[in-house]
Amino acid sequence: MLKTQTTYRVPYADTDQMGYMYYGLYAKLYEIGRAELVRELGITYKVLETVHQISMPVLRLECRYIKPSTYDELLTIESRLEEMPTKMIVFHHSIFNEQKELINTGVVKLFFIDQKSGNRISTPAMLVEKLNQYFG
Amino acid sequence: MLKTQTTYRVPYADTDQMGYMYYGLYAKLYEIGRAELVRELGITYKVLETVHQISMPVLRLECRYIKPSTYDELLTIESRLEEMPTKMIVFHHSIFNEQKELINTGVVKLFFIDQKSGNRISTPAMLVEKLNQYFG
Amino acid sequence: MLKTQTTYRVPYADTDQMGYMYYGLYAKLYEIGRAELVRELGITYKVLETVHQISMPVLRLECRYIKPSTYDELLTIESRLEEMPTKMIVFHHSIFNEQKELINTGVVKLFFIDQKSGNRISTPAMLVEKLNQYFG
Amino acid sequence: MLKTQTTYRVPYADTDQMGYMYYGLYAKLYEIGRAELVRELGITYKVLETVHQISMPVLRLECRYIKPSTYDELLTIESRLEEMPTKMIVFHHSIFNEQKELINTGVVKLFFIDQKSGNRISTPAMLVEKLNQYFG
Repeated sequence: MLKTQTTYRVPYADTDQMGYMYYGLYAKLYEIGRAELVRELGITYKVLETVHQISMPVLRLECRYIKPSTYDELLTIESRLEEMPTKMIVFHHSIFNEQKELINTGVVKLFFIDQKSGNRISTPAMLVEKLNQYFG
Repeated sequence: MLKTQTTYRVPYADTDQMGYMYYGLYAKLYEIGRAELVRELGITYKVLETVHQISMPVLRLECRYIKPSTYDELLTIESRLEEMPTKMIVFHHSIFNEQKELINTGVVKLFFIDQKSGNRISTPAMLVEKLNQYFG
Repeated sequence: MLKTQTTYRVPYADTDQMGYMYYGLYAKLYEIGRAELVRELGITYKVLETVHQISMPVLRLECRYIKPSTYDELLTIESRLEEMPTKMIVFHHSIFNEQKELINTGVVKLFFIDQKSGNRISTPAMLVEKLNQYFG
Repeated sequence: MLKTQTTYRVPYADTDQMGYMYYGLYAKLYEIGRAELVRELGITYKVLETVHQISMPVLRLECRYIKPSTYDELLTIESRLEEMPTKMIVFHHSIFNEQKELINTGVVKLFFIDQKSGNRISTPAMLVEKLNQYFG
């Protein structure tokens, strides 16, 4: 398994009139989390996209809202790859508040597109290589 | 069943550098759709919140991304209540592009909070009454 | 002068915990307004970008906040071209609430980029032609 | 003068199809910057709002776009109070990219509302006290 953590402070922009972070914004937190997980591998999603010409559209998203998060909270985004990606890559996310309570979980499934052909491809070999050490 | 439709034109603000509507923004489309469905009942979510003092936090969200949507497309958001809500209310959403292709589906489960007590409640009687004609 | 109007219903997503539309989101309303103004000319910003290969980055933005707008309000976005664009194009926007009160004004200055060369250009001839009838 | 710096990494969510951070999102960066500046004073905007019951609506916003920012860039937000606030408080912001180039400037004018009375007030004494050392 590969697991990383990053933090996110909730700006006013993300709150709604209930006083909570808007439910649609957790998807952004998962995106930030998976970008940090990829960075941990010694590559960036930006390089994947611009140098390796691979895009990663999202196929499915599932969120569970356990507790709300509020303005100015410093959230912790934990992101995990629980198994070696094949045709899809599945990121698991857990969001914790400052009291270390689990407030939200999210699962995001993405696939890989070769930008030149426009075709769907399996997990790029270069990524598999980097992931081998975690799923030996 | 209760079913309503509303349209949404994708602004530049909603696109990402892949040229698609950002995956996190479909949650906003579902929100717009369920607000229109509630309006169809002769009430508004605003009145529910401010007059009846009921909040509706989201419990779960599931999205399936079938095709991307792009800048300036006029999307159709179809929102459905497929069964009478009880402890939870479940909205089903289907997003169609201008070619009437189904591009995205979303399921959102919410519950009801009585703002005065802060307690979770079942579907308010006033809402059940309005829904009775659809689930007779 | 060329003037158009379009409407925008404030979604929950756009509110903040003050109960108002977040101050950064008026820029999106101006974008929606200027897209409708361009559509009025018989062209779309999308076509400008994809067919004519012209991009329009923003140079300056000025907003005045007069009254707040709140959830579910149906706002009217009035957008105006007050003079023939030359090296820049300047859009003026006035936002009205349901009581027809002016609640916000915005001025957005953009310029034109030829995507092929990457160079800044003056207002494209094709746009000038369409605008001639309004600034005769 | 009081000056603080904080960083912001541009998520995919913030990009548009031009490949740039959407022009409306700089307002969020200014908000993040001024929250950090207030935190520097040993108070938080959250405490101002919830404990001291003071709201700070925005009156004016001015942005100058110098260079675009792109996905995954680590921006630096510099926020400054250049003079002691009186009836209004004026924050100046400069955004720098990783090459330390100035890419954007923003000026945000806000005022103070006493939540209990709903009336506009001058800069709260408690804030003036904390600011005295910077504007001696």
